[in-house]
Amino acid sequence: MSYVYDFDHKHRRPPMEMKDLLGGKGANLAEMTSVLNLPVPYGFTITTDACRDYMAGGWPDGLTEEVSRARARLERKMGKRLGEPSDPLLVSVRSGAKFSMPGMMDTVLNLGLNDESVDGLAKQTADERFAYDSYRRFVGMYGRIVLDLPGEEFDLLLEAAKELAGTTSDAAVPVELLRYLVDAYQEIVKRHTSKPFPQDPDEQLRGAIEAVFRSWNGARAVAYREREGIPDDLGTAVNVQAMVFGNRDERSGTGVGFTRDPATGAKGAYGDFLVNAQGEDVVAGIRNTEPLSALKRKFPKVHEELLGIFARLEHHYRDMCDTEFTIEQGKLWMLQTRVGKRTGRAALKMAVDMTKDPQIALTREEAVTRVTAEHLEQILHPQFATRDYAVLTKGLGASPGAAVGRVYLTADEAAAAAHRGEDVLLVRSETSPEDVHGMLAAKGVLTARGGLVSHAAVVARGWGKPAVVGADSLRIEGKSFRVGETVVAEGEWVSIDGTTGEVVLGKVALSPAEPTAEFEVLLGWADTIRKGRLGVRANADNGPDATNARRMGAEGIGLCRTEHMFLADDRLPIVRRMILASTPAEEEEALEELRIAQKADFIEILRAMDGLPVTVRLLDPPLHEFLPHVDDLALKDATIGLTDEERRLYQAAKDWHEMNPMLGTRGVRLGVVKPGLYAMQVRALMEAALELVEAGGRPVVEIMIPLTVTREELALARWWVEQAVEEALAASNGADVGRAAGRGAKAAQRKAKSRAKAVTTAIIEAGASTPADVAAAKAALRLDVRIGTMIETPRAALRAAEIAEEAEFFSFGTNDLTQMTFGFSRDDVEGRLMATYLELGLLAHNPFETVDADGVGELVRMGVDRGRSTRPELKIGVCGEHGGDPESIAVFAAAGVDYVSCSPFRVPIARLSAAQSVLAMGVVPAKAKVPAKPGVPAKPGVPAKAKVPAKPRVPAKAGVPAKAGSGVPDAAKASAATRGRARGKPA
Amino acid sequence: MSYVYDFDHKHRRPPMEMKDLLGGKGANLAEMTSVLNLPVPYGFTITTDACRDYMAGGWPDGLTEEVSRARARLERKMGKRLGEPSDPLLVSVRSGAKFSMPGMMDTVLNLGLNDESVDGLAKQTADERFAYDSYRRFVGMYGRIVLDLPGEEFDLLLEAAKELAGTTSDAAVPVELLRYLVDAYQEIVKRHTSKPFPQDPDEQLRGAIEAVFRSWNGARAVAYREREGIPDDLGTAVNVQAMVFGNRDERSGTGVGFTRDPATGAKGAYGDFLVNAQGEDVVAGIRNTEPLSALKRKFPKVHEELLGIFARLEHHYRDMCDTEFTIEQGKLWMLQTRVGKRTGRAALKMAVDMTKDPQIALTREEAVTRVTAEHLEQILHPQFATRDYAVLTKGLGASPGAAVGRVYLTADEAAAAAHRGEDVLLVRSETSPEDVHGMLAAKGVLTARGGLVSHAAVVARGWGKPAVVGADSLRIEGKSFRVGETVVAEGEWVSIDGTTGEVVLGKVALSPAEPTAEFEVLLGWADTIRKGRLGVRANADNGPDATNARRMGAEGIGLCRTEHMFLADDRLPIVRRMILASTPAEEEEALEELRIAQKADFIEILRAMDGLPVTVRLLDPPLHEFLPHVDDLALKDATIGLTDEERRLYQAAKDWHEMNPMLGTRGVRLGVVKPGLYAMQVRALMEAALELVEAGGRPVVEIMIPLTVTREELALARWWVEQAVEEALAASNGADVGRAAGRGAKAAQRKAKSRAKAVTTAIIEAGASTPADVAAAKAALRLDVRIGTMIETPRAALRAAEIAEEAEFFSFGTNDLTQMTFGFSRDDVEGRLMATYLELGLLAHNPFETVDADGVGELVRMGVDRGRSTRPELKIGVCGEHGGDPESIAVFAAAGVDYVSCSPFRVPIARLSAAQSVLAMGVVPAKAKVPAKPGVPAKPGVPAKAKVPAKPRVPAKAGVPAKAGSGVPDAAKASAATRGRARGKPA
Repeated sequence: MSYVYDFDHKHRRPPMEMKDLLGGKGANLAEMTSVLNLPVPYGFTITTDACRDYMAGGWPDGLTEEVSRARARLERKMGKRLGEPSDPLLVSVRSGAKFSMPGMMDTVLNLGLNDESVDGLAKQTADERFAYDSYRRFVGMYGRIVLDLPGEEFDLLLEAAKELAGTTSDAAVPVELLRYLVDAYQEIVKRHTSKPFPQDPDEQLRGAIEAVFRSWNGARAVAYREREGIPDDLGTAVNVQAMVFGNRDERSGTGVGFTRDPATGAKGAYGDFLVNAQGEDVVAGIRNTEPLSALKRKFPKVHEELLGIFARLEHHYRDMCDTEFTIEQGKLWMLQTRVGKRTGRAALKMAVDMTKDPQIALTREEAVTRVTAEHLEQILHPQFATRDYAVLTKGLGASPGAAVGRVYLTADEAAAAAHRGEDVLLVRSETSPEDVHGMLAAKGVLTARGGLVSHAAVVARGWGKPAVVGADSLRIEGKSFRVGETVVAEGEWVSIDGTTGEVVLGKVALSPAEPTAEFEVLLGWADTIRKGRLGVRANADNGPDATNARRMGAEGIGLCRTEHMFLADDRLPIVRRMILASTPAEEEEALEELRIAQKADFIEILRAMDGLPVTVRLLDPPLHEFLPHVDDLALKDATIGLTDEERRLYQAAKDWHEMNPMLGTRGVRLGVVKPGLYAMQVRALMEAALELVEAGGRPVVEIMIPLTVTREELALARWWVEQAVEEALAASNGADVGRAAGRGAKAAQRKAKSRAKAVTTAIIEAGASTPADVAAAKAALRLDVRIGTMIETPRAALRAAEIAEEAEFFSFGTNDLTQMTFGFSRDDVEGRLMATYLELGLLAHNPFETVDADGVGELVRMGVDRGRSTRPELKIGVCGEHGGDPESIAVFAAAGVDYVSCSPFRVPIARLSAAQSVLAMGVVPAKAKVPAKPGVPAKPGVPAKAKVPAKPRVPAKAGVPAKAGSGVPDAAKASAATRGRARGKPA
Repeated sequence: MSYVYDFDHKHRRPPMEMKDLLGGKGANLAEMTSVLNLPVPYGFTITTDACRDYMAGGWPDGLTEEVSRARARLERKMGKRLGEPSDPLLVSVRSGAKFSMPGMMDTVLNLGLNDESVDGLAKQTADERFAYDSYRRFVGMYGRIVLDLPGEEFDLLLEAAKELAGTTSDAAVPVELLRYLVDAYQEIVKRHTSKPFPQDPDEQLRGAIEAVFRSWNGARAVAYREREGIPDDLGTAVNVQAMVFGNRDERSGTGVGFTRDPATGAKGAYGDFLVNAQGEDVVAGIRNTEPLSALKRKFPKVHEELLGIFARLEHHYRDMCDTEFTIEQGKLWMLQTRVGKRTGRAALKMAVDMTKDPQIALTREEAVTRVTAEHLEQILHPQFATRDYAVLTKGLGASPGAAVGRVYLTADEAAAAAHRGEDVLLVRSETSPEDVHGMLAAKGVLTARGGLVSHAAVVARGWGKPAVVGADSLRIEGKSFRVGETVVAEGEWVSIDGTTGEVVLGKVALSPAEPTAEFEVLLGWADTIRKGRLGVRANADNGPDATNARRMGAEGIGLCRTEHMFLADDRLPIVRRMILASTPAEEEEALEELRIAQKADFIEILRAMDGLPVTVRLLDPPLHEFLPHVDDLALKDATIGLTDEERRLYQAAKDWHEMNPMLGTRGVRLGVVKPGLYAMQVRALMEAALELVEAGGRPVVEIMIPLTVTREELALARWWVEQAVEEALAASNGADVGRAAGRGAKAAQRKAKSRAKAVTTAIIEAGASTPADVAAAKAALRLDVRIGTMIETPRAALRAAEIAEEAEFFSFGTNDLTQMTFGFSRDDVEGRLMATYLELGLLAHNPFETVDADGVGELVRMGVDRGRSTRPELKIGVCGEHGGDPESIAVFAAAGVDYVSCSPFRVPIARLSAAQSVLAMGVVPAKAKVPAKPGVPAKPGVPAKAKVPAKPRVPAKAGVPAKAGSGVPDAAKASAATRGRARGKPA
């Protein structure tokens, strides 16, 4: 095994496939040199193996010799030697890990200069100033980067020298002062290290190499890896390359170039260059760069050569490349290349354009993998157009996109200001249904409290409106808010970024949302890829949202939360009457009013989704959510006193108060306590559907029971629902169905006589005898009704086999499943603990944003496998927030679900991610037909032994989208893939 | 396959093994007849198959013929024929299911009589009165039981006849009136059924048989099965037997006899009999029965024969038998026998005695299975001595045993009254730590609110004090409480049964708790059986409880809840100071005070358990539990106003307020938020342990981290704990250990410098480098410290393999695991939903009383298997409430845990149940050595198709203890058994 490879080493595999060993930069240099034969200054790469061995046991045996031999080869090729007093070879030393990583040691230039060779360089170049400026730069860089000395000390001296010379330009410092500076810099080194600046090029080189190795474990690099999920044991490679000088003279220069425009995606070279300059001058931005087109005039031959190289690079890499080049006395040198970062708009345009380019011939599948979720976010929402702002505070990015507006602190004032034509930002401690008009009027929403499922977050996401929530350093004080010492008054401008959670005082420039033509084209390809494998629905609770969802490409509604209908201003009083009812008649009367209201809602939604499935979840939240806060009433009781009405509400609020509402009387439990409720909802839904059928529509209804934990619960709920369905059908369909329903009802009555256990028995009997009747009725009416359940408790996932016996579909409620699997209440944990947990590495990601593939994911895989073990045709979806998260979608796809459902504005992203997940799972050979084995559980995670995170998250990079499915065990992938195929031919 | 078997049929297997087919009664009759050759009137049994077929499809084909042939055989044996006018055969018809079941049809006697044969009977017996009385009884019974007519109508007529005859005795009704009654009874039948009373014995017989079949689905029978978990598809058998008459004359009689005294267990026959009477007369209790000993005088030969039969029965059944017999004109007939029910005291005495009886030669293992948990409860707690009382209301039986006392409604008044020498019952809406002195003073506690983990329940169980909680119809109104219309004032007597939850107005007589000599003997045997297989520890939080637990036989403490120490009156202000601390110094000062207090607590506990392991759980509950209620302070703020101190508490209460505290900042999360807390607790604990070591003690300390969800959390907590342990050891053990600790600390500090991820890294390094040092220190100090975690979230169970890498032991917190697996908050769900859920059959049992073997049980099995996959020597316990529940213990034993832990007063029951579970799992053959396979998950439950509960719970019957492990899938049993053996020889 070798530690060192020359750039022109003839590897057996393409260097680009050897990034693990050579690092990204080294692989690209070798690719350009040994494969493309581009003009690259000679050099060699010290592998990541060397770095790993160094970290494990210090400087590796044999490395010195290998470096020495590589150096000799380099010297031979260049005809110069490092440190040679007469005509020295100079080299750069750069780090280069597999993934580009800020925080690691960047570059030491001009290595090889010393007190002797500097004069050789001066003689050879006939440019003493150039030689001493190069030496000064080298000593400063080496001191700062390799020896870790404080950079200010060098900077102060340079500033002083410029002052002395009466100039502000580095280039105008006279050679005498440069000589002085070199000495002074060396003094700094000596003072700090108690040793003279190393004159021996071997020592210089070894120092620089070790500095690169050490920088792998620098604080910023460690933090970056932690954040991006990059394993700690990859290590970095080191690239040693002969120097070329863009700052030799006016026939020299340096620049960066892109093979296409990374901002717009437009074809043609794009970039900047500087005459007579080194790379760092371009970056420092002291002199104004010229556009690449100017090269044509100044260096026509070089320009032509560069364009040729750009074309070869694009064809070779089959993607847009980002390059660094230097012109030394008229000769072009390529110093670096890599696939370039790009904006969302550019990513889409390039991906689509490259499918048409015969030289690149990107397939549509490849094009779909070239665009990331982040790219789409940029297209779909306004963004901060600059990074040049100071962050006032940070909250949770709850709804993506950026917004700028004047601060208003109440919904009424926000609405009034918006009415006056102002851009408004609504700032609240937290929001409630009473704030909705203010939120609607605002450009964005900012709250001090609440997590990613707080009211503000959920409503804003539903509308695609930017929101930052839980900015907990923010205190609202009357007509202003305070963050630390900063007070922001009503009417002041504030900007928020709902993606990053940043809050900025003042107006930050925005780049607008701008879906391009390529957007539709590419998503169309994505749809083709995922069709029949992984569907995408939306979560929507009303007609406008459903319409919007359909426009965004949703193939149905995966979750319609009926409680949102209950919270409307005109409904809440009726709901409260229902709760307060002291007689069955009163209750029924209130339910009847609600039924009429709900029916109207359902008609809107079903009409918007005509022909597509709509999953309606029956009432889920605990009843106290519809009552005033018990504390508020207690307070009023103790002070002003309560009205009679309020007193009744107070009693009800006390009666329905719960210690842990998340684990209380919710979902189907509510149905058990108030069975009339579900019957009412189902009747309203069926009447709505029937009305649409009569008008020629084709409603597809899926009725979903929430929070099931036992089969018996679902059987009971199913019985209520079937009865209500039958009643509604009978009422509309006359005698035939009427008789069927009557039979069911009579059977039920007969059974109900024998008390106690009778209910369960009756269900089972009804379940056994009526489906045929129901099916007949359905057929007659062209009405498609399925009954299923949420899987959102760990027990439901574990007992999925028996629960599936009563369910025609499952929908994983991964929010609640995550809450219960972890024992994390989002309301409590997200604000208080999550940041600390992520910072300490106790969690790899926020499990409410990206599904926990190991724990919750295993329950999902179990639920899918066990559910299908008893009902192979079971339809399975995911309707938690995770349904719109790309990494989570990969986990669900691998688990074998049929569709994901997310908020309407996430639908395009889900469509893309679903297609990428399908591609990542690969094509299943047609003959590997394995029947679903009943009761075979998902393979549990293999315990990870190493101290690195078990499952690296590949950092998202432009052009190299995060590999879908990377967080999923292979076994799960395989089993899901098999099933995916098996489902192609349902039994 | 045959539907009918004669009692004397020669079965291939002992009839007692055929209860499935013959029912319990039929099997016993066949056993007595065909195996023991006892004098049993001939008869035959119609099998449960016939009943099942009848339920599925009506009267089975061929049954009529089989019954007809059996009847012919019976007639041949008896030399008489049914309905024969001259000398009729009469038969009884009785139901007899596998398990004795109240609510099923009991008995129809004298079947075969009709208007003609009654005269034949009169002639044959020369007793017209006897014949007509028999006929009257038959018509009445048949009408009531078979034809389902209202019994009052028959009773009214009989009453009228007695009035007419001027007598109060049935026996004194003259024959003329009996004749009249027979006609009048037949008229009743005709009026209701529109048909005459059936004269045809075939029709009579078929009617009675069908009535038995139908009674299987009677409401009471269904309810009973539901309650006892008996499957609905077993069906009942029907026994048809020739009548013998104990009411023929003075040489006849009838009685019930036990082979030993069922109340005391004393040897020797025991029972009652009545001369000239039928069985129902004995039951009716109209005439006073005579003790069995009187037989010796009146029927010496019969007496001798009976004693002989009793001896044979005992030797045959190897248990105490309960018999019914009849003497007909001097001839003894055995009508029934079964293993008899017995009191707890008797069960213990008999079990022990029978091991010494050479004829019975019970093994100790068998003896241990003869005693049930209920038997021990009777021994351990006072019980209601009678069933003769009216229940005022019912709550949850929260702490077993009965108590009688005068009602007091505040703790102070209760304490004062007890001080005056009164027996006190403390009645509160709910209790809090401020009520503890009143609870201590009371004989029992009754609350209106709260579930089985409410403060009242937990504290009362800890003290073994009877308690009924959550009696939600009870309203406290000043100095009295009200239940419906009944008002109970302070000072009135009330009795409660903490086992059943019954509340009774007035004083109910109590039978005292009286552990007998046999109690210790039998539990000693139980201990021998379970030793090395399943340990029993106690949950105890202070010295007295620990002492008591040890006295009860606990082999350590499985759960010491340190928060209980925090709630003491003198600690709470310090805890609040710690929470309110605005500077680290203030916080540290408060922690220091707490440390001193906790150290004293720990010394007491460790001393009480010297030499036995004590598992100390670091602080678990959310901090707001140590603060005043936020609502109370809000109210006070709005009315009276707050002091400065209160204002600070108010702010803290608001800051720490949680929506779902169960899923909030608890357990190790608290440790993450306030790391000094855990360090303080560990230091206090270690100092306590070291002090004891110096005094020559042998403390065995297990430090337990609560609520872990990720390996990283546990690694971090482990690091805190190890550091604190090392610090404490170093401080006491001087230089050597000091250096070791110093090394650890320095390594930690070095690492802590690189921020972000550094914490995790440091842990892993510390974990890798210090254990040897710690081990050395431990050895030097004879101090045994282990670090482990609760497994109480579903995720922890799923990820047990990796969590076990950081844990030396697991303890399943099955309370919280159940809450999260079901999404059931006990506080909310137990009071509001549980009763309804059980009634509707949505749950088979309350999963907080008996662990849910299918769902939560699977997580436990997974946790055990996966934990041991990475750490085979992992010690595993259960410390939830389920640790004291016999059925749950069987589930845990099958899962392969090492011990269960329960409240001190449940320890004897747990010892017994653990032994029974071990016996139920059987002995593992020595060569079946299967290594624990890493990552092989527990087999998921096979989906149950039938509509009966998938896992029958065998009803608890005296002498036939509930079969341990019956609720556990065989696969789980087998795997646990294998493991049990494997653990015998740890690697």
